[in-house]
Amino acid sequence: MQKQYDSLKLIKVENVGEFVYKVSLNRPSKFNALNMEIWKEIGDCFQWIDEDPDCRVVILQGEGKHFCSGLDLGGISLFNENDTNDSARKGRNILKTIKFMQKQFTYIDECSKPVILAMHGYCLGAALDIATACDVRVATKDAILSVKEVDIGMAADVGTLNRLPKIVGNHSWIKDICLTARHFSAGEALQFGIFLFLRVFDTREEMINEVTKMAKLIASKSPVGVQGTKNVLNYARENTIENSLNYVATWNMSQLFTDDLVKASMASFSKQPQPPFSKL
Amino acid sequence: MQKQYDSLKLIKVENVGEFVYKVSLNRPSKFNALNMEIWKEIGDCFQWIDEDPDCRVVILQGEGKHFCSGLDLGGISLFNENDTNDSARKGRNILKTIKFMQKQFTYIDECSKPVILAMHGYCLGAALDIATACDVRVATKDAILSVKEVDIGMAADVGTLNRLPKIVGNHSWIKDICLTARHFSAGEALQFGIFLFLRVFDTREEMINEVTKMAKLIASKSPVGVQGTKNVLNYARENTIENSLNYVATWNMSQLFTDDLVKASMASFSKQPQPPFSKL
Amino acid sequence: MQKQYDSLKLIKVENVGEFVYKVSLNRPSKFNALNMEIWKEIGDCFQWIDEDPDCRVVILQGEGKHFCSGLDLGGISLFNENDTNDSARKGRNILKTIKFMQKQFTYIDECSKPVILAMHGYCLGAALDIATACDVRVATKDAILSVKEVDIGMAADVGTLNRLPKIVGNHSWIKDICLTARHFSAGEALQFGIFLFLRVFDTREEMINEVTKMAKLIASKSPVGVQGTKNVLNYARENTIENSLNYVATWNMSQLFTDDLVKASMASFSKQPQPPFSKL
Amino acid sequence: MQKQYDSLKLIKVENVGEFVYKVSLNRPSKFNALNMEIWKEIGDCFQWIDEDPDCRVVILQGEGKHFCSGLDLGGISLFNENDTNDSARKGRNILKTIKFMQKQFTYIDECSKPVILAMHGYCLGAALDIATACDVRVATKDAILSVKEVDIGMAADVGTLNRLPKIVGNHSWIKDICLTARHFSAGEALQFGIFLFLRVFDTREEMINEVTKMAKLIASKSPVGVQGTKNVLNYARENTIENSLNYVATWNMSQLFTDDLVKASMASFSKQPQPPFSKL
Amino acid sequence: MQKQYDSLKLIKVENVGEFVYKVSLNRPSKFNALNMEIWKEIGDCFQWIDEDPDCRVVILQGEGKHFCSGLDLGGISLFNENDTNDSARKGRNILKTIKFMQKQFTYIDECSKPVILAMHGYCLGAALDIATACDVRVATKDAILSVKEVDIGMAADVGTLNRLPKIVGNHSWIKDICLTARHFSAGEALQFGIFLFLRVFDTREEMINEVTKMAKLIASKSPVGVQGTKNVLNYARENTIENSLNYVATWNMSQLFTDDLVKASMASFSKQPQPPFSKL
Amino acid sequence: MQKQYDSLKLIKVENVGEFVYKVSLNRPSKFNALNMEIWKEIGDCFQWIDEDPDCRVVILQGEGKHFCSGLDLGGISLFNENDTNDSARKGRNILKTIKFMQKQFTYIDECSKPVILAMHGYCLGAALDIATACDVRVATKDAILSVKEVDIGMAADVGTLNRLPKIVGNHSWIKDICLTARHFSAGEALQFGIFLFLRVFDTREEMINEVTKMAKLIASKSPVGVQGTKNVLNYARENTIENSLNYVATWNMSQLFTDDLVKASMASFSKQPQPPFSKL
Repeated sequence: MQKQYDSLKLIKVENVGEFVYKVSLNRPSKFNALNMEIWKEIGDCFQWIDEDPDCRVVILQGEGKHFCSGLDLGGISLFNENDTNDSARKGRNILKTIKFMQKQFTYIDECSKPVILAMHGYCLGAALDIATACDVRVATKDAILSVKEVDIGMAADVGTLNRLPKIVGNHSWIKDICLTARHFSAGEALQFGIFLFLRVFDTREEMINEVTKMAKLIASKSPVGVQGTKNVLNYARENTIENSLNYVATWNMSQLFTDDLVKASMASFSKQPQPPFSKL
Repeated sequence: MQKQYDSLKLIKVENVGEFVYKVSLNRPSKFNALNMEIWKEIGDCFQWIDEDPDCRVVILQGEGKHFCSGLDLGGISLFNENDTNDSARKGRNILKTIKFMQKQFTYIDECSKPVILAMHGYCLGAALDIATACDVRVATKDAILSVKEVDIGMAADVGTLNRLPKIVGNHSWIKDICLTARHFSAGEALQFGIFLFLRVFDTREEMINEVTKMAKLIASKSPVGVQGTKNVLNYARENTIENSLNYVATWNMSQLFTDDLVKASMASFSKQPQPPFSKL
Repeated sequence: MQKQYDSLKLIKVENVGEFVYKVSLNRPSKFNALNMEIWKEIGDCFQWIDEDPDCRVVILQGEGKHFCSGLDLGGISLFNENDTNDSARKGRNILKTIKFMQKQFTYIDECSKPVILAMHGYCLGAALDIATACDVRVATKDAILSVKEVDIGMAADVGTLNRLPKIVGNHSWIKDICLTARHFSAGEALQFGIFLFLRVFDTREEMINEVTKMAKLIASKSPVGVQGTKNVLNYARENTIENSLNYVATWNMSQLFTDDLVKASMASFSKQPQPPFSKL
Repeated sequence: MQKQYDSLKLIKVENVGEFVYKVSLNRPSKFNALNMEIWKEIGDCFQWIDEDPDCRVVILQGEGKHFCSGLDLGGISLFNENDTNDSARKGRNILKTIKFMQKQFTYIDECSKPVILAMHGYCLGAALDIATACDVRVATKDAILSVKEVDIGMAADVGTLNRLPKIVGNHSWIKDICLTARHFSAGEALQFGIFLFLRVFDTREEMINEVTKMAKLIASKSPVGVQGTKNVLNYARENTIENSLNYVATWNMSQLFTDDLVKASMASFSKQPQPPFSKL
Repeated sequence: MQKQYDSLKLIKVENVGEFVYKVSLNRPSKFNALNMEIWKEIGDCFQWIDEDPDCRVVILQGEGKHFCSGLDLGGISLFNENDTNDSARKGRNILKTIKFMQKQFTYIDECSKPVILAMHGYCLGAALDIATACDVRVATKDAILSVKEVDIGMAADVGTLNRLPKIVGNHSWIKDICLTARHFSAGEALQFGIFLFLRVFDTREEMINEVTKMAKLIASKSPVGVQGTKNVLNYARENTIENSLNYVATWNMSQLFTDDLVKASMASFSKQPQPPFSKL
Repeated sequence: MQKQYDSLKLIKVENVGEFVYKVSLNRPSKFNALNMEIWKEIGDCFQWIDEDPDCRVVILQGEGKHFCSGLDLGGISLFNENDTNDSARKGRNILKTIKFMQKQFTYIDECSKPVILAMHGYCLGAALDIATACDVRVATKDAILSVKEVDIGMAADVGTLNRLPKIVGNHSWIKDICLTARHFSAGEALQFGIFLFLRVFDTREEMINEVTKMAKLIASKSPVGVQGTKNVLNYARENTIENSLNYVATWNMSQLFTDDLVKASMASFSKQPQPPFSKL
């Protein structure tokens, strides 16, 4: 593993299988609350992973009892109390801060490697902003989630409200959880057809085991195929079908010319495990 | 409550809790069938509510045995039998009528206050056009719904076909109900994962109780937070993630500068109920 | 039935009820694997059906044990081994091939008549590209599906990745099946709320019976209403709500002026079956 | 002419030819500066004209020495000095005011009848917001224009910045006039290729003569053809070519079925003047 | 030259230089008026050229005294006089006809090879629909153009209204010519800054000479570079800057890997003419 | 001036008036050809300026005889000759490089401060990519420009093809210069109505004098007004009019609450020069 990850103080990056990284929010004494430091480290970490050929898939989770209790209100001050600027200038300063914070989570969404999020314990506020930027979400049944921004008098502004309507197909439920700011458990979500999650597990151990299996499976596949698939799915989410059909065709003008195609096909037809692939 | 609501004849507006309005279609003898008068009153009512600081959340329902049996074909004549115009001019006249009818329901969608729809009995045709324009939908299990326009030889043109694909994540089911015009019960929808509804209740009484609780909960929250959240979620439904991230950041250039933020946060951290907020 | 359908060699078109066509992939010895011939025949067939007034609804299925095992790798060579062109020119050739293949399936999506897909047995790879282009999907519970392109080292490029995010409302699940290329049964999908399917049946016989009933029901309705509804729903999937409201109003400038409106309405109000309608 | 126009106090509506209305800003003592009253009257007037079959084309101009000197700062108070609301609530109030003001000018853009603007004298600030909402702009060579909002410390927010980049093809020039807020004459614009104007005239008299001829010419044409053309051009401005090709085809599903087609064609081929057409 | 072009009866295709085709409307006795036959031949011809490696650039012009006098009203009957269908069905038939006609001209726009249009004499109605679908337009100064559809009571529906607002930067002028249907000469357009044309020539001979030089110049360049450039410019016309930046980067993932890059660069730096390139 | 600018080696940043920066490409011995170092410095410089309250407007130009001769082919190697990867992986590496290069120029476009480009001498290839990312372009009449990428066998991929169709309103001319790669002088462009430029000057001295005046004028205005105006114009370029009207209204929810509004208005009405404004 490259040395750059050692410089992270509140994020832990581990190699937990061939080409599989586990990234952990690592501030358990604070329930992994997000201060500006950890926020920036998330962005740095996923920019590095994007370019790191030793990583093909990421498991994201939180150390300790909870995935993440949201914003660390002691550690982030959106407002400068002594700011004597007029409202327009204060607004411009806030704009810069919000855009910076949004961008760090967007690095997860734009990372070329798939990111599987395993949630447990509290997953509040900004934790959901992270969740919606990941590719796959699983949780333990007793995980407690909330889009709690309404409870502090604001509209969530770092991703939840923007991504939820694109990735979950029950807008009655989206409006409910976002407007009431109520706590809901992953178990409850299960009753509603698990719109948000892929699966809900009984225990954290089972969750981590299953997610690791899934990550290893993805990591064993051709990175040309896997990364192209994430890229095109994210593109399709935002564009018309015709436009995205054109995009994938343009993408494959180069991406079909890969040794992986032959290697993977032969393994697949002979029902063998996928072979080793060159780095990407 | 402001006096303007008294002028409505087929709509009843009641204050059923602090900042909570209950709006009822009130033409029970006709199963709340929609004639042009009630259609226009719906539009007027939600335009007023949009500007009414005494209302922070709306429960919408129907008086009598049914939420709404759809278009009152005695009360709406799309066509003027004596119209001797050529087809082009007839078409232009129809265009104006349809746009007017669409606009009245769009006032619900664009209303800055959340609208919770509680459906029971028949919810047919135009009733679904209303339903898709609301924020949250609940129903009794024996509520009977249909997108019945195909059964009268036309494509539904006041909202159902336009909004359903945005708010419900099973297009097989959407195509089924829209192309067959079949009746389905909310109970049946429940089997399909309640895509359309937040919850389905056994009785109307239970439904109204629960919905009122939910409405009061939302009404107790900061209106800056609640209205911003509805606004941004609706924007996100229609725009790319990047564009909507930019939008919420621009929105919050002013909306974070509110006394609600301090009041709400303090209550939230001290686990107290949300405090009173200034009007909005 | 028009004679043109007789020219198809790997596709069988049957009239299985008034205005109901059953279209079958008919290469059972190869599990209906898709070679270039059958690919082109699919496109031809749905272009003809689009214009064929004797057809109002289509059931699509596969003859033999499986719906479709995907690409026939013996029968399709994306690459010309002797191609000595530079990579840019090879890329341009691939682009033409992919666009041709995409277009054949898009004819299903753009066909003015609804298409109900009944899947059983293997439904792999390109079979899902077909599935996502249909209007309604049903399956037997033991149908085995996979988005298997990752297993041959590529991003699926003829429709699955482009249409799935528009028609299924659980993006965790979409990413899972597309990134792992794992087999899943329709029965499993049922557990996840049947996002992809309308219904999952115990047996193929039951499935065909029920689907035929559904097709006959749709075929008995006004074709002006049915085709307008499919058209508008597909438009709404891709455009903002405001834009699609305008579109349906413009569409209905002419489409409300149909004898079907009177005939269908009278039958509907008198609770009679829908009457015969003129061809379309 | 319908009576409703008589109720306007600061706008004058005259019939200056068959089906030709001249609409004049009529507050010459104030250089036609816009207060809230005249602002609202503009919106009312163009909504009425939209539905008025006696009008087929509009000439818009200003009475007195100047077309319009912009916002009447004595007559419009965006801010309530005694407003003790927090910044978020003040922002929401401003939002409502701006949207109202935008909407009044958008009624010009959305009016189904073409609007030709004839500018002379000062055309400052909000005058340009009006100008960009019209279909055709002409001016006298000594007309003085400016996008002057930057000079009062704000970004213009009622249309100029939104529409200029869509209707003028030299963005260097757009940025120049909007960022410097400098005065420029129509004569100067002429040197730059008259991007903004159709023509620039030596005198106001010549301008009005020529514009009236042009308006009469348009008014003599089939209103089905003319109004359809404005509608489709405005649609094309905002949508992809493919989407707008589909739109005009859908529009013409009804609009080609008009008696005007026969009447106009016969006149056109026999080189006769266009015949009288039915109202629209 | 391939034989297929010989089958065209009303279109003449000639090889007028290496890789340069001249395509001529060839029905001079009718002023190249467009009947359904020539309409379809235009579509066929440009589909073939798209795939024809012997053609790298096209000059499009008209034989005889005029480029094209528009629709041949004797040769095209949009309406079937004996059609007893209701208006909705008539509308659907018209829709198919219009879409077919649009598509034939869109083949010019989508053709991978640049198309230079040289106009002279009358260029009326449908001639402008063709013109807007070409890449570059030149004309003789006495060429007479008009968007004459308003004069036959309709909105132009095969391309002019859809493409003009995208390719010409003076919307006052666009609205003028489309709403008045007036004749204008290319010389007059010149006065307005030649928005529509690249150049306006004194004589047809000079025009053809200059256009042939220009075509030969383009034909001598790398077809990878030229066709990529047309492709990306057309994409940029329709998409946001960010989206189109992403598109060209994806396109160049394969298109930079061409022998043309080395060959062309070396010639360019040594100020030699461009060398021969492989076919495309 | 902040110290960070001193670290730039190939870019010179000077303060040439209050709040006016002059940024110069400073590699005159190489005609300011762009190697990777200067490319990155451009990005860094405009990111810093975006946040630098001492700068309100930028003049961008080139030191020495030419603005910029384009890509330094000695200094940029897009390809690694020893790269033994398959074509798919090579494609992905190129994608990263192109996106990095695009992003550096996009920082100019996204910089909150207006950028005026003054071009002289050679302005070739990548120089035009820079030019299209600026707000205002001026040139000396003998400036020689070309979109020369076609001459090296490629489609330009760092901005020209993406931005030109948005900022210049004569697509015949855009296609001409991009497809022929021909040299054209700013003087020639002048003949075509100066679509690309604001003005064309006889001498470089005159150009710099005039541009400096213009920059000082902009710098004297309220930065709230100026920066808001650039922001909204760029937004309007990419979005529908309705969407951008909503955007500017949302922007002004905070931006109208500025002391600049009062100060600027008072100066404007009393015909005084604009007063000093607080930093932004």
